[in-house]
Amino acid sequence: MSNRSRPSVHPFDFEVPQLREVDAADNGAPPDDTVRMKDVQGMPGTPAGLALRLLQFGFAAVSVAVMAATSDFPSVTAFRYLVAALSLQCLWSMSLAIVDLYALLVRRCLRNSRILGFFAVGDAVTSTLTFAAACASAGITVLIGSDFNDCANNHCTRFETSTAMAFVSWFLVSPSFFLTFWSLASR
Amino acid sequence: MSNRSRPSVHPFDFEVPQLREVDAADNGAPPDDTVRMKDVQGMPGTPAGLALRLLQFGFAAVSVAVMAATSDFPSVTAFRYLVAALSLQCLWSMSLAIVDLYALLVRRCLRNSRILGFFAVGDAVTSTLTFAAACASAGITVLIGSDFNDCANNHCTRFETSTAMAFVSWFLVSPSFFLTFWSLASR
Repeated sequence: MSNRSRPSVHPFDFEVPQLREVDAADNGAPPDDTVRMKDVQGMPGTPAGLALRLLQFGFAAVSVAVMAATSDFPSVTAFRYLVAALSLQCLWSMSLAIVDLYALLVRRCLRNSRILGFFAVGDAVTSTLTFAAACASAGITVLIGSDFNDCANNHCTRFETSTAMAFVSWFLVSPSFFLTFWSLASR
Repeated sequence: MSNRSRPSVHPFDFEVPQLREVDAADNGAPPDDTVRMKDVQGMPGTPAGLALRLLQFGFAAVSVAVMAATSDFPSVTAFRYLVAALSLQCLWSMSLAIVDLYALLVRRCLRNSRILGFFAVGDAVTSTLTFAAACASAGITVLIGSDFNDCANNHCTRFETSTAMAFVSWFLVSPSFFLTFWSLASR
């Protein structure tokens, strides 16, 4: 029952096949703790986590592409901000997808509190920026389409599509963030 | 050291003076657990938690009042939505301020997982709605003020004030949400 015979080592310093077992014993908590969530799909380093990252990247990229394809988006500050924020989201999701893919290929466990903290902060920042951009664009799109009824002179459909893709991208970042934050808090 | 002699009872069924001690032993976890956060200021049932709720309520109320005082806010969907979302935030923060005040006056502990879950979900929903309303209003305000340069015919200052108050109110909901979510996850 004593954990002292096992050295408390950083998970990345270990040999690959032992990693997940050692990490479970590394917390100094009994293994039957009811709130401990190990390897919940969607967390960093799981196949569902990788799928979430790829979907976030895909929707953010489509949103940027559709918005950038309109000729008059630079005249509205909120649309310029949407392109900037969603480009950042693309970069972040792509980077984490590569990290997840690496973790899956070499079977490494991303259950280190510094890495989880970094992922949680990054997810919180990018998802807040993405959501703000989507809401601002939605406000403008509704103003042009419903309040002014001026879709004849504007690319309403493209603005709506881009805004919707931005919301979907934000919606897909949320589970990544909550699972990372939860596994960080329940360590 | 054995916890078995103490019955594992719902905290609210207990006599008032024992409550905080019983709750600490109720989790079945050792008291020196490093991730356990007890009575961190800002959590439900603490004086700082009550202060946060009152500030959230105050800023949301000012935001609604300033926006509702402009004559032309109903012509823009985003501004009508801001009034609705911030009114909901007012009601939620006021309700939780009353709960916090009651918990402080009768010295009851709000460290029950159902209550914490309800508070976390409510905070997540109201803060998301408040942030969405603030971002949409900010998008419109910037469009009117900077992109159209049409502040002569619009109440730009009032719109900006209302939007800023909405952002402050959202900023004050975030610590409440994160502390509640953290204490829920680390139980």
